[in-house]
Amino acid sequence: MIIVMKTGAREEQIQEVIQRIEELGYKSHVIRGTQRTVMGAVGDERGKARLQSLESMPGVESIVPILQPFKLASREVKPAKTVVKVGDLEIGGQAVVVMAGPCSVESESQMLETARAVKAAGATVLRGGAFKPRTSPYSFQGLAEEGLKLLDLARAETGLKIVTEVVNPMDAELVAEYADILQIGARNAQNFALLKKVGEVGKPVLLKRGMATTIKEFLMAAEYILSEGNYNVVLCERGIRTFEISTRFTLDLNAVPVLNKLTHLPVIVDPSHGTGHWEYVAPMAKAGIACGADGLLIEVHPKPEEAQSDGVQSLKLEKFRRLMEELRPLVEAVGRRI
Amino acid sequence: MIIVMKTGAREEQIQEVIQRIEELGYKSHVIRGTQRTVMGAVGDERGKARLQSLESMPGVESIVPILQPFKLASREVKPAKTVVKVGDLEIGGQAVVVMAGPCSVESESQMLETARAVKAAGATVLRGGAFKPRTSPYSFQGLAEEGLKLLDLARAETGLKIVTEVVNPMDAELVAEYADILQIGARNAQNFALLKKVGEVGKPVLLKRGMATTIKEFLMAAEYILSEGNYNVVLCERGIRTFEISTRFTLDLNAVPVLNKLTHLPVIVDPSHGTGHWEYVAPMAKAGIACGADGLLIEVHPKPEEAQSDGVQSLKLEKFRRLMEELRPLVEAVGRRI
Amino acid sequence: MIIVMKTGAREEQIQEVIQRIEELGYKSHVIRGTQRTVMGAVGDERGKARLQSLESMPGVESIVPILQPFKLASREVKPAKTVVKVGDLEIGGQAVVVMAGPCSVESESQMLETARAVKAAGATVLRGGAFKPRTSPYSFQGLAEEGLKLLDLARAETGLKIVTEVVNPMDAELVAEYADILQIGARNAQNFALLKKVGEVGKPVLLKRGMATTIKEFLMAAEYILSEGNYNVVLCERGIRTFEISTRFTLDLNAVPVLNKLTHLPVIVDPSHGTGHWEYVAPMAKAGIACGADGLLIEVHPKPEEAQSDGVQSLKLEKFRRLMEELRPLVEAVGRRI
Amino acid sequence: MIIVMKTGAREEQIQEVIQRIEELGYKSHVIRGTQRTVMGAVGDERGKARLQSLESMPGVESIVPILQPFKLASREVKPAKTVVKVGDLEIGGQAVVVMAGPCSVESESQMLETARAVKAAGATVLRGGAFKPRTSPYSFQGLAEEGLKLLDLARAETGLKIVTEVVNPMDAELVAEYADILQIGARNAQNFALLKKVGEVGKPVLLKRGMATTIKEFLMAAEYILSEGNYNVVLCERGIRTFEISTRFTLDLNAVPVLNKLTHLPVIVDPSHGTGHWEYVAPMAKAGIACGADGLLIEVHPKPEEAQSDGVQSLKLEKFRRLMEELRPLVEAVGRRI
Repeated sequence: MIIVMKTGAREEQIQEVIQRIEELGYKSHVIRGTQRTVMGAVGDERGKARLQSLESMPGVESIVPILQPFKLASREVKPAKTVVKVGDLEIGGQAVVVMAGPCSVESESQMLETARAVKAAGATVLRGGAFKPRTSPYSFQGLAEEGLKLLDLARAETGLKIVTEVVNPMDAELVAEYADILQIGARNAQNFALLKKVGEVGKPVLLKRGMATTIKEFLMAAEYILSEGNYNVVLCERGIRTFEISTRFTLDLNAVPVLNKLTHLPVIVDPSHGTGHWEYVAPMAKAGIACGADGLLIEVHPKPEEAQSDGVQSLKLEKFRRLMEELRPLVEAVGRRI
Repeated sequence: MIIVMKTGAREEQIQEVIQRIEELGYKSHVIRGTQRTVMGAVGDERGKARLQSLESMPGVESIVPILQPFKLASREVKPAKTVVKVGDLEIGGQAVVVMAGPCSVESESQMLETARAVKAAGATVLRGGAFKPRTSPYSFQGLAEEGLKLLDLARAETGLKIVTEVVNPMDAELVAEYADILQIGARNAQNFALLKKVGEVGKPVLLKRGMATTIKEFLMAAEYILSEGNYNVVLCERGIRTFEISTRFTLDLNAVPVLNKLTHLPVIVDPSHGTGHWEYVAPMAKAGIACGADGLLIEVHPKPEEAQSDGVQSLKLEKFRRLMEELRPLVEAVGRRI
Repeated sequence: MIIVMKTGAREEQIQEVIQRIEELGYKSHVIRGTQRTVMGAVGDERGKARLQSLESMPGVESIVPILQPFKLASREVKPAKTVVKVGDLEIGGQAVVVMAGPCSVESESQMLETARAVKAAGATVLRGGAFKPRTSPYSFQGLAEEGLKLLDLARAETGLKIVTEVVNPMDAELVAEYADILQIGARNAQNFALLKKVGEVGKPVLLKRGMATTIKEFLMAAEYILSEGNYNVVLCERGIRTFEISTRFTLDLNAVPVLNKLTHLPVIVDPSHGTGHWEYVAPMAKAGIACGADGLLIEVHPKPEEAQSDGVQSLKLEKFRRLMEELRPLVEAVGRRI
Repeated sequence: MIIVMKTGAREEQIQEVIQRIEELGYKSHVIRGTQRTVMGAVGDERGKARLQSLESMPGVESIVPILQPFKLASREVKPAKTVVKVGDLEIGGQAVVVMAGPCSVESESQMLETARAVKAAGATVLRGGAFKPRTSPYSFQGLAEEGLKLLDLARAETGLKIVTEVVNPMDAELVAEYADILQIGARNAQNFALLKKVGEVGKPVLLKRGMATTIKEFLMAAEYILSEGNYNVVLCERGIRTFEISTRFTLDLNAVPVLNKLTHLPVIVDPSHGTGHWEYVAPMAKAGIACGADGLLIEVHPKPEEAQSDGVQSLKLEKFRRLMEELRPLVEAVGRRI
């Protein structure tokens, strides 16, 4: 950590900062520049939050952290890519994994029809929300356990793995009984109570980036789960909030190569929520694969115009099938398979 | 709700949309423009999420909602300002309410020293976190129930009301035993499970705006609490995420007059989190009052450079006292009292 | 355009708005909803800015535009894709066009070495700035006409087309004497005096999106050039300002399919400025092609660590050659050639 | 400047960076941490852009600048507040300066009626655009020199100073013949050709912040003008682009105390463009004064519903008069006068 003193900071102020750095167990290292004095604090970074408080000391201009704040998620700590195993399915390996299904679980026929179609097209995981985090309390809130049972039924028939969202720490065990992968949604990306809980439960977790979460904060959120001893975390870019309104969010594909540099965890892309319009799902799915994503999460619905939620961004079954066909040569062109 | 058809939409597509509007229980109203056909769907807006799905129908360009999605929080439904009563304290009345205290509850002496000082300076509510939502799992996570007891002690000695954060639905009842006001933090602004829970518990709630929450979504989050029958909600603007990095967040004071127009709920401002630097707290606190806030939430710490969290943005006791003195003429200038 | 009245707007206010709509030459169309009255203004949209002012009338809540504000740039007006011809080179055709070169023109050897290398690797346009818009007045401002001459020299030797930036309307003719394509930089995306000038000059224009320019505003900027009778405009996505700081800007690839839907103009992607780090250039270049871009603009420098500007985001010659090789199968996978 | 090496950077890479630092004329200073090596480059910062390019060297992780990039605008260089003199008017002194008038100059009667009214209410500067930078080429582009003459007429009658925008370097001298203060609009905040030109012309300049301009970049833009020898620059906060759409822009009042810390230049606030709605102008004008602004720029129009541009955000004459009355006690409460 670097401590930058104000121009004109007095010698006694510099000495007080040095003293405080050493009290906190770091070695200090002073660089006297032509205009400012700058200090390095060298040592184990565990106490970082405390060092940050030096910014309140007289004469201090700012504090510049040097090390990344995450550890278990860091590629510096574990250079080899993590492959998350979900039974016989691998996420983060050579094969690109496609997860598809409706936003909400609505009925048996909807789930079975969708499951069969996405399986036939090449998806290996079925998505569907039984507990829905909806912006409005008046919107459909999901079928709860009944929805989980419908997912179970679709799995039994198709052999697809199931990913579904958990929104309340109190439901985490219940959801884990049914799901193969627990999803943490964007609005809960920094719900630390929920992150700890899914860390304890131990099932693979699909962690979505929050809409105002920086990539570093996203990795710190993953760190909450990892630090409970659960290393099976898949990261999902799903769009951030920007000023642009022609898409519902701004799918930030830059996050894919940045994450691939910073972390060993697998990274997938959700072009459905990221753009909010079905017309943009196919091009952005392709772009996600081209820049190095390990998989895709895509909303598919047999009748989008009758969906309880997010119909606008759902692909019809036939359009999904065509997308999967178009993806195949692209996946090969980047040296992977589907 | 307005449905905009694509240029060149065929008559049969228009008819299908009309039919679907009427199936959903609305009256349709067609305007044939020089380039596009536009339709109004007139009726009770409860089914809105379903209407949105019309955007998936062939020939439809976009859907434009006309009514605000919140009801109980709306000034159209309840024009008179809500005054939230916390015992003998009123929030949203003529007096400006100042809530002050440290980010985290750390020790008995820290809390008692702070409580006495902020009370003497004119604050009426003591803040302090016992359960801390920290970005890093390695940072101080709060004293939990022990912290709540220290808040109770400070209340007993000073008569200040207590506001403290709840981060997990499972802790809501415990926190409610000690707190006068339950705080929902920015990272939980769309944690709907938690919102419902504090709605049920029934104590006054201080709801912070999320860092990527639009004002409409913020009011929808309040609506979750109100729709559980708990009408004692105080809104708090605390900064949004933007590209500007010279402040930690961008305190969005525009939200104050916008909220005062749209809702009857009281609105307060948190310049400490909003700016992230103690030097900017006083000017932005004054600005908050000048544009119509009903109160302030300010971080105060006896020794910011030793704080477990957020020392950088905390005022020292003496600086807080001076701010309160400077606020007095300003509060009068806008026709209120402190 | 839709005019939404306030809840409780009085009948006389509604009548005044109707009268004003008709005075401005539109036909009015009233929809009386259960809570609000909404009016359509039907007619030629030329006077739109005036209609917007209705928002100041008593009883009016808001104004919702229905038609896109751009015309010549719109795909509704011209459905067929525009192919911009630069001599024998086509931008927007079946072949993906790669423009490459250094940020700044620095010396003859730098330009010739770069030009030969990018040509050998498959680029068809050479980029290089002679007039540099630099954030700091103390940074290198470019070689001006001497730089243009070096570009000319490189063209003469390699046959590459030249794209270079114009920053001042007073230089536009001078730059046009040397350049094949005039570039308008992101900071001048809404410099309307400059846009009109390059519209008049008539050479093909590469228009970069501003860092806070919405896609609609971007198309309005293109409209300035088109409305001067210059139809040879190539759009370039180069990153927008968001809260994320792990990349220099947030390259918004969503803009590619959105633009491909809204406009007939060709669209290229600049992953160098968009990410600001050479390590992310190759993955984002691939993603740009995968989602439908017609070309790429890539910074290449023989010795990035000695560059006068933007060395951090420049590829070395060998890395550029490798990227071009990796692009080939991908370009084929999306049905194009390079 | 601090150079951070990658974890595991080899000794020879460290030596190469040291050598390059010293070649560029800096002294190097090495700190070997527990995980990373960090280097300080000590010396005159003029060559900074070159140092930045070290980021391309093998083994380098990132570069952290320590000094602010602006000099003449910096409060470290000139601690005393600058008072910009416009004839007998002082901007940046104890008195708060109010500039008011319509967005566009439209007619003689409009200008004279407005000028008399804003003068009577207490404004000292008249605003009005003769050259208009409009998003659409089809919108009213201003009356050009005829508009300047109408401003001159209004000045002659009322004694108000005139501020008006210049959008093209070719018009700068013409505008300077009529105007007391030259305005640079938000869309030209980084139009460096124009900044240099108004620096040369030498008249006082009102520089608006761009909608995606960080505060540091804003000061670098001012530096362009100052470095031409023109020290009479007034900064104007007018709203930035964020995800929030209930206001047209997000007026970033935090910029006022931040600028007051970093620079000696006067700072004013434009709540009309900043919010885009007349209803929010008064509260945000008050907030601007409360947080330390030296003045206000406010749109006023006799008949907003007939304005050629920006009617929605214009105050009527009577509303402006009332705002000025409400401002008086507030201005006194912060120890200033109006």
